[in-house]
Amino acid sequence: MSYNSFGHIFRVTTWGESHGPAIGCVIDGVPSRLPIDEADIQHFLDQRKPGQNRFTTQRQEADQVKILSGVFDGMTTGTSISLVIENTDQRSKDYGDIKDKYRPGHADYTYMEKYGIRDYRGGGRSSARETACRVAAGALARKILGLGIQVKGALVQIGDKKINQDNWDWDEVSNNPFWCPDKEMVPVWEKYLDGIRKGGSSIGAVIEIHAIGVPVGIGAPIYAKLDSDIAAAMMTINAVKGVEIGEGFNAACLTGEENADEMYMDEDGRPALKTNHAGGILGGISTGKEIVCRFAVKPTSSILTPRKTVDKHGKDTEIITKGRHDPCVGIRAVPVGEAMMACVIADHLLLHRAQQG
Amino acid sequence: MSYNSFGHIFRVTTWGESHGPAIGCVIDGVPSRLPIDEADIQHFLDQRKPGQNRFTTQRQEADQVKILSGVFDGMTTGTSISLVIENTDQRSKDYGDIKDKYRPGHADYTYMEKYGIRDYRGGGRSSARETACRVAAGALARKILGLGIQVKGALVQIGDKKINQDNWDWDEVSNNPFWCPDKEMVPVWEKYLDGIRKGGSSIGAVIEIHAIGVPVGIGAPIYAKLDSDIAAAMMTINAVKGVEIGEGFNAACLTGEENADEMYMDEDGRPALKTNHAGGILGGISTGKEIVCRFAVKPTSSILTPRKTVDKHGKDTEIITKGRHDPCVGIRAVPVGEAMMACVIADHLLLHRAQQG
Amino acid sequence: MSYNSFGHIFRVTTWGESHGPAIGCVIDGVPSRLPIDEADIQHFLDQRKPGQNRFTTQRQEADQVKILSGVFDGMTTGTSISLVIENTDQRSKDYGDIKDKYRPGHADYTYMEKYGIRDYRGGGRSSARETACRVAAGALARKILGLGIQVKGALVQIGDKKINQDNWDWDEVSNNPFWCPDKEMVPVWEKYLDGIRKGGSSIGAVIEIHAIGVPVGIGAPIYAKLDSDIAAAMMTINAVKGVEIGEGFNAACLTGEENADEMYMDEDGRPALKTNHAGGILGGISTGKEIVCRFAVKPTSSILTPRKTVDKHGKDTEIITKGRHDPCVGIRAVPVGEAMMACVIADHLLLHRAQQG
Amino acid sequence: MSYNSFGHIFRVTTWGESHGPAIGCVIDGVPSRLPIDEADIQHFLDQRKPGQNRFTTQRQEADQVKILSGVFDGMTTGTSISLVIENTDQRSKDYGDIKDKYRPGHADYTYMEKYGIRDYRGGGRSSARETACRVAAGALARKILGLGIQVKGALVQIGDKKINQDNWDWDEVSNNPFWCPDKEMVPVWEKYLDGIRKGGSSIGAVIEIHAIGVPVGIGAPIYAKLDSDIAAAMMTINAVKGVEIGEGFNAACLTGEENADEMYMDEDGRPALKTNHAGGILGGISTGKEIVCRFAVKPTSSILTPRKTVDKHGKDTEIITKGRHDPCVGIRAVPVGEAMMACVIADHLLLHRAQQG
Repeated sequence: MSYNSFGHIFRVTTWGESHGPAIGCVIDGVPSRLPIDEADIQHFLDQRKPGQNRFTTQRQEADQVKILSGVFDGMTTGTSISLVIENTDQRSKDYGDIKDKYRPGHADYTYMEKYGIRDYRGGGRSSARETACRVAAGALARKILGLGIQVKGALVQIGDKKINQDNWDWDEVSNNPFWCPDKEMVPVWEKYLDGIRKGGSSIGAVIEIHAIGVPVGIGAPIYAKLDSDIAAAMMTINAVKGVEIGEGFNAACLTGEENADEMYMDEDGRPALKTNHAGGILGGISTGKEIVCRFAVKPTSSILTPRKTVDKHGKDTEIITKGRHDPCVGIRAVPVGEAMMACVIADHLLLHRAQQG
Repeated sequence: MSYNSFGHIFRVTTWGESHGPAIGCVIDGVPSRLPIDEADIQHFLDQRKPGQNRFTTQRQEADQVKILSGVFDGMTTGTSISLVIENTDQRSKDYGDIKDKYRPGHADYTYMEKYGIRDYRGGGRSSARETACRVAAGALARKILGLGIQVKGALVQIGDKKINQDNWDWDEVSNNPFWCPDKEMVPVWEKYLDGIRKGGSSIGAVIEIHAIGVPVGIGAPIYAKLDSDIAAAMMTINAVKGVEIGEGFNAACLTGEENADEMYMDEDGRPALKTNHAGGILGGISTGKEIVCRFAVKPTSSILTPRKTVDKHGKDTEIITKGRHDPCVGIRAVPVGEAMMACVIADHLLLHRAQQG
Repeated sequence: MSYNSFGHIFRVTTWGESHGPAIGCVIDGVPSRLPIDEADIQHFLDQRKPGQNRFTTQRQEADQVKILSGVFDGMTTGTSISLVIENTDQRSKDYGDIKDKYRPGHADYTYMEKYGIRDYRGGGRSSARETACRVAAGALARKILGLGIQVKGALVQIGDKKINQDNWDWDEVSNNPFWCPDKEMVPVWEKYLDGIRKGGSSIGAVIEIHAIGVPVGIGAPIYAKLDSDIAAAMMTINAVKGVEIGEGFNAACLTGEENADEMYMDEDGRPALKTNHAGGILGGISTGKEIVCRFAVKPTSSILTPRKTVDKHGKDTEIITKGRHDPCVGIRAVPVGEAMMACVIADHLLLHRAQQG
Repeated sequence: MSYNSFGHIFRVTTWGESHGPAIGCVIDGVPSRLPIDEADIQHFLDQRKPGQNRFTTQRQEADQVKILSGVFDGMTTGTSISLVIENTDQRSKDYGDIKDKYRPGHADYTYMEKYGIRDYRGGGRSSARETACRVAAGALARKILGLGIQVKGALVQIGDKKINQDNWDWDEVSNNPFWCPDKEMVPVWEKYLDGIRKGGSSIGAVIEIHAIGVPVGIGAPIYAKLDSDIAAAMMTINAVKGVEIGEGFNAACLTGEENADEMYMDEDGRPALKTNHAGGILGGISTGKEIVCRFAVKPTSSILTPRKTVDKHGKDTEIITKGRHDPCVGIRAVPVGEAMMACVIADHLLLHRAQQG
C-alpha cells in the first residue's frame, strides 16, 4: 500500500506541497544504462510550466529539476532516481485568505476532515503543482519507451466546443497555446477563453492521449489490464472526472457489428485490425493499434465570483478565490496526461519482459 | 505486482477459466467476527446468474458458491477466505469453432500474442464468467460496509436510449429485467432489445453505481484516490470502455460557477455540500455525499453476422459466433459494478482505520 | 498488503485450515507454455507427506493435488493457477481437548487475542499443514528455474548433534528418513530421536538449503535483496526462529581477511570467487556461487508432558497435547525450505528479466 | 514491486549514493498530527554518525537532516514526508583506486554484473551510508510507537567475545562507545578492537534489539508475520548475514519442554507467558512479551591487507582498500537495527488498526 506511489515495476513516489521548500519524486525500477540528464527532463517540465501565456496561471516558477541520485556519468545506474524541484515563487500572502475557509470544489474540506490538519498554502499537497513530478517521471519513462513508441497528447474540447477530428494535425499542436490539433478551432477557443478569463470564470476540457507504436501483447489480464492502469493513472490527475478508451462512452450507442474491429492479414503477413474502436486494447492487452485515451478535466473552482461556503469554525460564509489562476486548467493537463501514459506503458513494457520465457 | 488481484487491504485474488472445472477467489484482509454464510453470498450470485430471462445468455450455470476456508462457526476468522464455484454447464462443443479463429472484439488475438497459448473454450480466462468471483467478493465487502453504507446500481442507458433522471426510483430497479430505475423506459428498452436479439446483434449500455452513506474523509491522496481506485476497478470489468465520477465528461462543459458544490452548515451543525457535481469525492477523499460512478459497456462482439477475421495460421477468414449470448451484456454488469464499488469502499474503510491515530 | 501472499511477480496466495474441507493456493505470474501436470506437483507433495516413517506424525493425508485453472493442454497459460488439496483425515475428535485451552508455544493465544475467534481444530490456519501449499507452489517455481538451477535441502542438525560437513553427500539425503547428507550421523540421529519420541518429547533442528546454478546478477538492492527475501520466506515457515546466509552468525567471529571471498579469473575467463563465505550473495545480488541458507526450527510444543497454561475463560490450568505429532518437525521442513527457496529464486529470475534493457 | 522501499502501510523509500549530492527518503503512511521537527530526527542521526570515536570510520559527515514535505506547523499532515541529508565530506579522491577493481566481499562485482554500470565512488548505492535514511525514518516510526513502546538495541558480541547476559544493564549502553550493556565486557572489547584497528583488520559482531511494550495481538499470519518482516528488515541492512528471534538457532538444541513458554493468569487477571523463549512472537503475532531479535554483521571487507581480486577488464590483480573504515561496522549497526525494528512495529500497529472491526 502506498498513497503517494504509482506503477508496478516502473514505480514513482512523489512528495511535496505547493508552498513548501520543494517538490520531488523518487523513481524506482528504471533499467540501467539509459542516457539521461537534467535537460532531458527540463524539456518536458518547460511544456507544463505556468505563466507561458495568458491562458495559464501567471504564477512564475522556474521549475528547475535537479537529479540527486541514480544517474552516474550521464546514465541511469539501476538504482532509485531522486528528482527535486525547488519552489521559488511561493507568495504565501496571496493565500492567507483561504486559511480558515473551505474553497468549494477544492479538497480543503475533505483533507481537513480526513487529517484534522492541512497545509492551506496554495492547496498544499492537493495542489496541481504535484503534477510537475509526474512530468519529470514521464521523461524517464520515455527513455524506456525509446524511439519506437511515441506518446502525444492534444486538447480536443473546451466547454462544449469540440474539435473536428477530421482536421486532426499533430504538427498543429505545438503551434498554439492550447495543444489544439485542429487549426480551425484555435481562434474559436481563443475568443471563448478570453471571455471566460475576463469574467473571472473557468471552464472544463477534454484531453486525448495517444501512444503510438506499442507492440501487440503489452498489458495483462485481469486486474493489471493496460486500460485499467491507464484509467487509474489519469483519474489521479487533479480535477479529472472521467476516462475513456477508444470509443469510450460512445460504445454504449454502438452495435456489435459497428464496434468490433475486424481483422485481416496485413502486407507484412501479420494479423491486424482494420479499425480501432477498441482504442488499441482488447482484454487488457495491446492490439498493436494506437492506444487512445481521453479524460475530462473539470473547471477549476478558483473563480472570482463569491461562492457560499463554511469555515473551519463551523460558520457559514462566502469566499472569492483571488490569486493567479487558469481559466482552463485542462490546457496544462496535456503534458501531464502524456506523462502518465508514458509511465504506464513503460511500466507494462518492463512487466512484459518479466513474463517472457 | 499481481495480475489477478485487486484491493489494498481488502484484497481479492481470482482464478479460473470459463470452461475449466471451477472458478473461484481468495479474499484476504477481511476483519474477523463478521457473520457470513454461503447463502449471503449466493444471494448476490443469483442476481448476476445468466439464463434468468430472454435478455441474458441462456447458458445455465447453477453458480453455487462454496466457502472452503476463513469462516468458522458462521463467522470470519481473519484468515484468507477461499470461495469456489464449479462450472457445471460447459458444453465445450459449442465453442469448437473458435479454436483457431480470432473473434473480432474479443481478447483471442491479444492473449495468443501475449502468451503463445490460450484456452479457447468460451474465452477461457477472458470470459465474463470471471465476474462471478467479483460478485462473491462483493458480498464479503458488504459485510464490512455494514448497514450504514449501501451500494446500489442501475442501468441508465441502452444504445442511445437514456433514462430520464427525474423518474429515478430505486424501488423500480428490481421490478424489471434491466435494473432500470425509470419505469417509463422499461417498455422502450424491452421492445428495442427484442429487436437487437432477434437480429442476432448486440448493443452497448451505461451503468450507474451509487454508494450511499459513505462518511466524509474516506479515501486518500494522491495515488490511492478513491475515484482512481473506482476507475481502475470498473475498467477491469469485461467490455468496460469508460468510467466517470459525478458530472464526469459533462464537467468539460461546465463553468467553475456551475460545477463547484457550494457548502453550508446543515441542520446538525455539520459542514455539507448543497449539490453533488463532484459525485461525492474531492481530492480523492469522500465528501459525505453519495458517491456516483458511471461506466460504459461495449456491445458484446459475439453476434450472428459473419465478420472478417484471421486464424492462428495467418489466413484471412470469416467467423460467426454461435452459441448463447447476451444482446446487451451491460445488463449483467450491474451487480458486477455494485460488487466492485463495494470492494473499493470496504478496502478504503479498512485503510482509513489504519491511518487513525 | 497481503497477509496470505508472498513473492513479487511469482506470487503465491495460500488459504485453508488444517481441518476445513481443503487447503490450496493460487499462483500468479507464472510464464506461459511451461509444461506441468498434477504428477509434477504430486512428486514434491509426497516428499513432505506425513506418516511415512516413525519420525513424522502418523496423521494420514492423501495430499492429492488438483489443478483447477491456469493450465491447458498440459501447459501453463499465463493466467492464475489454482491448486487444491482436500483434507481427508480430519479426526476432529482428537482435538476437542484444545478447544478452550491455549497450548504453550502454539499460536492459540495470539490468534485469539488478535481475532477474537479461532478455528481450534488442529491449529486451524496456524497449522503446518499450510506448508503443503508452499511445496505445491515450489513445484511450479522449479519449472521456471528449469534444469539449470537446482534447489536441494538437507537436515544438518538435530538437537546439539550436527553433521560433519566434510561427510556431505547429496546422494545420501534420499537414503534415510532424515534428509541427512552425512551417512555417519544417520544412526546417531535414529537412536536419539527414538528416545525423544518414546519420551513423548520433541527437539529442534537446523535445515540447510542450497540453490545451485544461479547465475551472477540475480537479486536486487536495497529492500528486494535476494537474502532479505530468502530470510523473509524462511521465517514465514512454521516454527522457524532463525535464518542465516553463508557464514551467517559465524561471520561475527571472523576477520575481514577470513570472511571476504577473494576473486580470480576462472578457466573460462570469467570473474569468480575462490571461496563462498558470502553464501552466494553480495549486496543482495547473486555472485554465481551456490546460494546457501540455513534456518532453525524449534521443537514442536505438542508434547506428552503436562504443561501449565490458561484457558479462554481466564483460568489457570494444565494441558497435555495428545494426538499424533512429530518428534522433530524440522525433518518435514526440508521440502518446505526447498520450496520457499525455489519460489524466491524463480521470482527474482522473473524480476531480473524485467530490468534487462 | 519496489526495490528501494520497505513496509506495508508505514512505507519508506530511500535514494542516494555515498558520494552523490545527497541521500534521502520519502516516508508514506504516517498518520497526521504527530508532532515532529528536524531535531527529533537529528537526535537519532547523531547516534549513528561516523567519526565519533576511534572505533568508527573517521569520515566526517554533518548528517544534517532537512524536512522538505509532509510536516506543517510542527505536525505531520498525513502526506508523504521527504527527508534529505546532504553529502558534505565526499573526498572522492580516496576512492579512485577502486574504480576498476572489484573489492572482495563488497557488492562491486555483483552490481557491475547486474547493471553493467556502477557508481564506484565509496560504494555508491551499496554504501552503508544509505542506513542514515533508515535511522531518520525510524525517528518517525517512534512517533507512531509513542511513549508506550520502546525500541532499544545493544551490541552483544564482537568476534567470539560475547557479553554475559546476566550483566545486562540498559543504562550502561550509552556509557561506552560500543552500545555494550555489560560493563565488564567494555574494557575487553576496547583492547581487542584496538588490536584489530591497528592491524588494519576488521571483525564481525552480533546486535540485539528489543521492542518493549508491544501489546499482544500485533502482527499477522502467514506471510506478514511480525518475525518474517523483522527478519527481512534486518537482512536488508548492509553486511547482515543472519537473523534470529528469541532462542533463535539455539532453539534447535532445545526440547519442547524447555522451549515452550508456559502460561498463567497474571496479577491483573490477564493471560501471560512465564518465560520468553519465543522472543515475543508466536504464529507471527506478538505475545505481549518483549520482542527480541539478534542479527549478525560480518566484518567489513575493507582492510589494509592486500587481497586477490580481478578488475573490470578481466585481469587478475590485488587490492588494498585504503581510506577511512570501521574496524567493527557492527557498532554503527545498532541504531540502524533499532530503526528497522521501530519501522516494522509501527507498520504493524497501523495494519492492526485496519483489521479492527
